Amino acid sequence: MIPQAQQNPHRRFNPLKREWVLVSPHRTQRPWQGQTESKSTEVALSYDPTCYLCPGNLRAGGVRTDQYTSTYVFENDFAALKPDAPQFSSDEGDRGLLLAEGESGICRVICFSPRHDLTLAKMSVPEIRAVVDVWSEQYAELGAREDIHYVQIFENRGAMMGASNPHPHGQLWASRSIPDEVVSELAGQRDYFAEHQSNLLCEYQKLEESLGERVVAQNASFVAVVPFWAVWPFEVMILPRRHVTDLQAFTEAERSDFASILHSVTATYDQVFDTPFPYSMGLHPAPCDEHEHPEWQFHAHFFPPLLRSATIRKFMVGYELLGSPQRDITPESAAETLRQASLRIPRI
Amino acid sequence: MIPQAQQNPHRRFNPLKREWVLVSPHRTQRPWQGQTESKSTEVALSYDPTCYLCPGNLRAGGVRTDQYTSTYVFENDFAALKPDAPQFSSDEGDRGLLLAEGESGICRVICFSPRHDLTLAKMSVPEIRAVVDVWSEQYAELGAREDIHYVQIFENRGAMMGASNPHPHGQLWASRSIPDEVVSELAGQRDYFAEHQSNLLCEYQKLEESLGERVVAQNASFVAVVPFWAVWPFEVMILPRRHVTDLQAFTEAERSDFASILHSVTATYDQVFDTPFPYSMGLHPAPCDEHEHPEWQFHAHFFPPLLRSATIRKFMVGYELLGSPQRDITPESAAETLRQASLRIPRI
Ligand SMILES: O=P(O)(O)O[C@H]1O[C@H](CO)[C@@H](O)[C@H](O)[C@H]1O
Ligand SMILES: O=P(O)(O)O[C@H]1O[C@H](CO)[C@@H](O)[C@H](O)[C@H]1O
Repeated sequence: MIPQAQQNPHRRFNPLKREWVLVSPHRTQRPWQGQTESKSTEVALSYDPTCYLCPGNLRAGGVRTDQYTSTYVFENDFAALKPDAPQFSSDEGDRGLLLAEGESGICRVICFSPRHDLTLAKMSVPEIRAVVDVWSEQYAELGAREDIHYVQIFENRGAMMGASNPHPHGQLWASRSIPDEVVSELAGQRDYFAEHQSNLLCEYQKLEESLGERVVAQNASFVAVVPFWAVWPFEVMILPRRHVTDLQAFTEAERSDFASILHSVTATYDQVFDTPFPYSMGLHPAPCDEHEHPEWQFHAHFFPPLLRSATIRKFMVGYELLGSPQRDITPESAAETLRQASLRIPRI
Repeated sequence: MIPQAQQNPHRRFNPLKREWVLVSPHRTQRPWQGQTESKSTEVALSYDPTCYLCPGNLRAGGVRTDQYTSTYVFENDFAALKPDAPQFSSDEGDRGLLLAEGESGICRVICFSPRHDLTLAKMSVPEIRAVVDVWSEQYAELGAREDIHYVQIFENRGAMMGASNPHPHGQLWASRSIPDEVVSELAGQRDYFAEHQSNLLCEYQKLEESLGERVVAQNASFVAVVPFWAVWPFEVMILPRRHVTDLQAFTEAERSDFASILHSVTATYDQVFDTPFPYSMGLHPAPCDEHEHPEWQFHAHFFPPLLRSATIRKFMVGYELLGSPQRDITPESAAETLRQASLRIPRI
């Protein structure tokens, strides 16, 4: 990274979404008198009789969770999307000012493990591999449906990120429409492909590997980097080493390697502030619409909120909501912190 | 609003930013076992000797705050932007993949009142009018500079929204670049203007006034609505009744009316859950670049996080960060709640 950028306010361009982030590296000395969060604590119980995601327990909707032993998928009892939602389109103002459209879809919960006290960081690689297999099956099943054009798989980890239950689980929201974040990543990748006859994220991965300064973990099939344009303090993106549009296209080895790098990233996070690290993470496979997507490269995003300690987070508020995202520590220094943290992962 | 949309999942289009929001009105019954916030409390002290924004006190940077009696503006001691930041542009990868640019600007803090215990909701309309005058002067002064192309004025209110100090204050971040949120609102307004020879937000304001169902406050010069495409549960937009691009173009009466509607909106918010209502708010005047902006209409946004109670907020996390913003209560029902709340504002 050029020296001016390490010490002076600058902005960086995200070519995937074609948005800028403001970087203020000189601002890290700012005192903090604002809100502090309660420190996340380890979950001690391996089975919690009051947890509706633990095997055999009753859920709020009145359904009983099965006696599962590995992973477990069920329809979200309070789904944001429903398969039978009516299709309609209305524009009361007739000029696109009051435009609404019916939206249908499917929301599922994916329990990662019957154990209440585990997180991806604490699960073994074979256990995470079972989760990767479920994601892949779900993507295949839902992606094949005519009424589904995107399958968004994600995890909200930690109370700070809105998780309503500490039991290790993620979600999927599959929709008829392609959500806007994906639409914008699609446009960025499509234009790059048209201009360079190569994949934006494949080229980016090679560039990051050759430079090394933002790489935080890697194995035979994947590289994890703090993106050059990261918005969240310790944001990470996982990129495949070869061109692969979605989970279904993973080889056997890639499924295991993906499980392994997910473990590396999450275990590293827990070492940064010696606390279970909250985050939202999600997979971005290609849309499952009627088109081929040679321009698309599969990737995963991690968006963790902590900034300075286990209790001080980054707030995305006034300027961020009204102007542009802003960060203090540079992506390069965040990557260095993560690399150091990874050395502290206990070897078992 | 058409009946299907009141009960079924649908998406709504934001023509200003050209983005969609997913609305799941059937989901309000969802039980909440996730994080609850500590309830914001009223500030009792009118002067706090440890507050660096109270008159005469020493700030973290070592400078002393003046003995001010009305409003007070000073350069942010830990500014995210600096006027003398070096201009540079670098693209290590040469394909726009590692693109950074030097960014300069000015960050100021604007104390609304010497009284530590006041908020916009508790200040009198003439006191808020003094704040509007300062905003207007600041916009004029900074907007005239050749190295400033946007003046983003905002307030983060409440610890939940990252405010580092309860003393009533806002900020301005003025930058050489036009921030992305403004760039996208500019594009939306420009295209509408080209197509219809009228202003998107002027037409929208007329439509909302004629329908009434999303209007929450109004006076001779302004209307406050929960936008049709609101993302935050009780999001509000303030729109002028005539076409006016920025604060400098306000008449005397409009300045007072703007102060008055700011008071109405903030006082209404405090009644919703009978708690000081956290929010980020900001003004969107036209950019102050080398162009005229006939397509632009001045407006203000309020983004408050609370959803169900004084302690349960909306989390913008997994699906929101990776897919699209999502809300449960409809904008129409939020507007109805706000109208009811406004009836409870104590008359003094
Ligand atoms: O400048 P402050 O009030 O210390 O900081 C607050 O507002 C800024 C502008 O929205 C944000 O970047 C910070 O994350 C937030 O804590
Ligand atoms: O579905 P959950 O886990 O109850 O809810 C959580 O994740 C959703 C998807 O990101 C968000 O819309 C909610 O605000 C959040 O609390």
